[in-house]
Amino acid sequence: MMFERNNIGIIGGDQRQLALAESIAGDGYKVFACGFENADLTENVQKANLHRTVSVCSTLLLPLPVTIDGETVKAEYAEHPILLNQEFAEKIQDHRVFGGVTERALSMCPRLADLKLQNYYSREDFALRNAVVTAEGALQYAMQEFPGTICGSKCLVAGFGRIGSQLVPRLRALGADVTATTRKPQTAARIEALGCHFVPTDRLGDGGNYDILFNTVPAMLFTSDVLAAYPHGTLLIDLSSAPGGVDMAAAKKLGIAAMHAFSLPAKVAPRAAGEIIKRTVYEMMKE
Amino acid sequence: MMFERNNIGIIGGDQRQLALAESIAGDGYKVFACGFENADLTENVQKANLHRTVSVCSTLLLPLPVTIDGETVKAEYAEHPILLNQEFAEKIQDHRVFGGVTERALSMCPRLADLKLQNYYSREDFALRNAVVTAEGALQYAMQEFPGTICGSKCLVAGFGRIGSQLVPRLRALGADVTATTRKPQTAARIEALGCHFVPTDRLGDGGNYDILFNTVPAMLFTSDVLAAYPHGTLLIDLSSAPGGVDMAAAKKLGIAAMHAFSLPAKVAPRAAGEIIKRTVYEMMKE
Amino acid sequence: MMFERNNIGIIGGDQRQLALAESIAGDGYKVFACGFENADLTENVQKANLHRTVSVCSTLLLPLPVTIDGETVKAEYAEHPILLNQEFAEKIQDHRVFGGVTERALSMCPRLADLKLQNYYSREDFALRNAVVTAEGALQYAMQEFPGTICGSKCLVAGFGRIGSQLVPRLRALGADVTATTRKPQTAARIEALGCHFVPTDRLGDGGNYDILFNTVPAMLFTSDVLAAYPHGTLLIDLSSAPGGVDMAAAKKLGIAAMHAFSLPAKVAPRAAGEIIKRTVYEMMKE
Amino acid sequence: MMFERNNIGIIGGDQRQLALAESIAGDGYKVFACGFENADLTENVQKANLHRTVSVCSTLLLPLPVTIDGETVKAEYAEHPILLNQEFAEKIQDHRVFGGVTERALSMCPRLADLKLQNYYSREDFALRNAVVTAEGALQYAMQEFPGTICGSKCLVAGFGRIGSQLVPRLRALGADVTATTRKPQTAARIEALGCHFVPTDRLGDGGNYDILFNTVPAMLFTSDVLAAYPHGTLLIDLSSAPGGVDMAAAKKLGIAAMHAFSLPAKVAPRAAGEIIKRTVYEMMKE
Repeated sequence: MMFERNNIGIIGGDQRQLALAESIAGDGYKVFACGFENADLTENVQKANLHRTVSVCSTLLLPLPVTIDGETVKAEYAEHPILLNQEFAEKIQDHRVFGGVTERALSMCPRLADLKLQNYYSREDFALRNAVVTAEGALQYAMQEFPGTICGSKCLVAGFGRIGSQLVPRLRALGADVTATTRKPQTAARIEALGCHFVPTDRLGDGGNYDILFNTVPAMLFTSDVLAAYPHGTLLIDLSSAPGGVDMAAAKKLGIAAMHAFSLPAKVAPRAAGEIIKRTVYEMMKE
Repeated sequence: MMFERNNIGIIGGDQRQLALAESIAGDGYKVFACGFENADLTENVQKANLHRTVSVCSTLLLPLPVTIDGETVKAEYAEHPILLNQEFAEKIQDHRVFGGVTERALSMCPRLADLKLQNYYSREDFALRNAVVTAEGALQYAMQEFPGTICGSKCLVAGFGRIGSQLVPRLRALGADVTATTRKPQTAARIEALGCHFVPTDRLGDGGNYDILFNTVPAMLFTSDVLAAYPHGTLLIDLSSAPGGVDMAAAKKLGIAAMHAFSLPAKVAPRAAGEIIKRTVYEMMKE
Repeated sequence: MMFERNNIGIIGGDQRQLALAESIAGDGYKVFACGFENADLTENVQKANLHRTVSVCSTLLLPLPVTIDGETVKAEYAEHPILLNQEFAEKIQDHRVFGGVTERALSMCPRLADLKLQNYYSREDFALRNAVVTAEGALQYAMQEFPGTICGSKCLVAGFGRIGSQLVPRLRALGADVTATTRKPQTAARIEALGCHFVPTDRLGDGGNYDILFNTVPAMLFTSDVLAAYPHGTLLIDLSSAPGGVDMAAAKKLGIAAMHAFSLPAKVAPRAAGEIIKRTVYEMMKE
Repeated sequence: MMFERNNIGIIGGDQRQLALAESIAGDGYKVFACGFENADLTENVQKANLHRTVSVCSTLLLPLPVTIDGETVKAEYAEHPILLNQEFAEKIQDHRVFGGVTERALSMCPRLADLKLQNYYSREDFALRNAVVTAEGALQYAMQEFPGTICGSKCLVAGFGRIGSQLVPRLRALGADVTATTRKPQTAARIEALGCHFVPTDRLGDGGNYDILFNTVPAMLFTSDVLAAYPHGTLLIDLSSAPGGVDMAAAKKLGIAAMHAFSLPAKVAPRAAGEIIKRTVYEMMKE
């Protein structure tokens, strides 16, 4: 069997790649999954080893991130590790290869740099769709942890970037009174255009009588001094990427109920996350 | 110490009454809690036995429901049972007494009928505020269980009563495409006024390509036949009161991911539930 | 030609009935329009005199209201008046007849009472759909008259009935901070469920720093005393039916920019109004 | 009288500068208005000639645009023209001067280039706040011109820039089914995050069964060919800047109800427009 345009190989991954494989198969592609020996897959997806996968598939999808340890492809359901070495690079050359967060893989296996390894994680449309998943995950966490209702609550969202700008209108739509912080006048204009209030980021230390605080800024904003300006018992959900923007020890001492919510998309909505990878890769295939 | 207008006694209850006690204390009332020997309370609330509570408080709040077993006041944190007998009735007479779901208590202890025992559970404002908590709880469950995002999903809500009419606009506000069912033309008008679609309840069996189904109708709507009209893998969240409106066995056989979500307010938002009891009782005290 | 189930006659009316005639024709009915000599109609609708209309149509639609003067059918586009007399009643007997606001017609021409004259205006679904049109018309008026933007404005809506309950969420969705008044605790609960504030109707005289006031209550709420509690320059739009609920003379003296907005549906959205009549009549035909 | 930090001079303008003058005075500044001989001003604002204005005010606000004819400052309420010449430039030097659309003024009077003439019109926050006013104005036009209701209508918005991204969520919030066009995958992601649909801009010619089309793109998108793909009677509101993006002659021939809505902020909401200038200038004064 020669490799065909309509065959797509999924090499490694976690729950998101499982969902991705099934979803692509549902679109009429023939899908081969390598590194999924221990996974439950429907009959629409064929499990295959690396050799067979690269033989029959012109397009290959690597996971997000491509590697964690720098030595093997991330593959949670694999029986045997898929080594990220020169042999691997040779096998997948001449294919169209997509992966998410490819930097570490490239630095560990320079041969990969010769390939047309395309990084879907660095694309703006991918990041935006992920922000929606994160914003919904933040609502879910808030509903779980806040003993009251979002409706009628007073919320503060630090940062109005990709995630903040998705979270703020959702909180308001559910009936909250929402304030967001920003450093820029034009962002203040966007916040007010949603019927929300804004405070300059450097006034975070003024505190306020909020029920829930959300942090989306990947910087240490919620220092001990800042936290002290908020009431005992305030809930604080940190959505920024690790190590986060909250002094957790200080929060604990001050009675602020702070929690990290890292990597929400993979955790709370693997199917949505798989769908987002698919849509982004389809878009890249057209370009 | 004589009893005073500004002393309020909480007799029995669960997490909601704990929150209620603290919240009332926060408003400046002196609060005595009876049946909370095993609970953690702040210094704002005084633990007291029944005798002391009725001696110093003119207003007494019984739990929701007042009794489960018909013999004792519901009191999850009590060391000793609070018997619902003639002696109890005599002790609380001459007080203003509020309780939720009082019917069973009244039938078991007819003496209570002579008292001015007022039922906050039967009030429309109480029910409506509870519906908001339930609607948010339903969103939380949907976000937890649905592998995609609410945004962009296709949802069907069976019933547009108190809960349905709170849930439908929230789903739409989060970006879903929402259809609701009703039997009445005037309710269809209210559904369309939200930018949503409606189908007559008796057409539920026509099925459709929905991602999430919500049932709010306390009747067996989702029979085996109806369930068969929806795709394998559809998520179904039953918000109606026990025993629910879904043939769970049939759902399992058909691959519909059905789940009950009974008594959401007490489970997902005890503080909100306590707040609602407080607001309703305050309202009743004014009337 | 005998009369047929699929022939519908429109007898009299204004712009709404014009739209109604065309819309019904678009659904595949054969439509005859009587009293539209001076109107522009497409070829889908046949102009006809009363005799021909009643001869060929089993179903007849009278206007809204059926009569203004009590002597003729309301017919803005008629060359000749259509008399509302015994002869008219005889002609339309044995037909299925629908009309809006039929009371005056019935009192003037008692013979009509023998007919099955059905009043679509008195139906709840009709009223609800009209409320949506009125709410949008209110937004349009507010945007025209208020020199600022709805987004970021502070609005007060007196009354949370059919119109108020449609207007309040729309104002909030456009970014306003909205307060509504009500006399009932359960309505207060519905207002807060939208993320809005409420004040008891009898506290309207407390005033407040609002940008726009809307009145939906058909009673003299905005007396001189109440108006005096609001700032000079406040915009007040009275949506209640004539004679309205605002002391217009006092408003003028106090510098409140008050305006009536009676009969919004007919004025601002005749096609929508026609569509609503059609949907209601179709519903009644099924019943 | 020497010039003081708290004196602000408004030199020329239209209704927006009138509103601006009053609003600044309301904040506690002493405001002098030059070129407003024929305007009604409250006692809070002092009319003054150019000499007096520049003598007592350290900060000067020029209109938007600064000049239309290139020879005089735009001043709709002026009795005498304010010449834009070397003398003018000398008078206002040593002041802090703000204006909107300063390019033409600078090219006509090069001496102005030596001054610190700051252009508020070129700022992103100004543009964003204006977009909100434009979006609301577009809703108002749509409500006026569309015979149905926004609720339940099918809308297409061409372009998702500043104005489109404000208009799309407002239409959806009012109950419309909304599609927006874009050329970029990341913008498609933002559109879908609102619960709306997108189509690639180059598929505009595929048409569709829309009730209302909005154009926000300043390019000839709605050519005769594209217009022919939409139903007779469709409403089209062109919000792009003159000369607009619609072949109006073709629209007329094809029965598309097309209309320009240029310069909406100045027309529909002068007070809001004045407020936006004020906020932007205050922001610039702080920087």
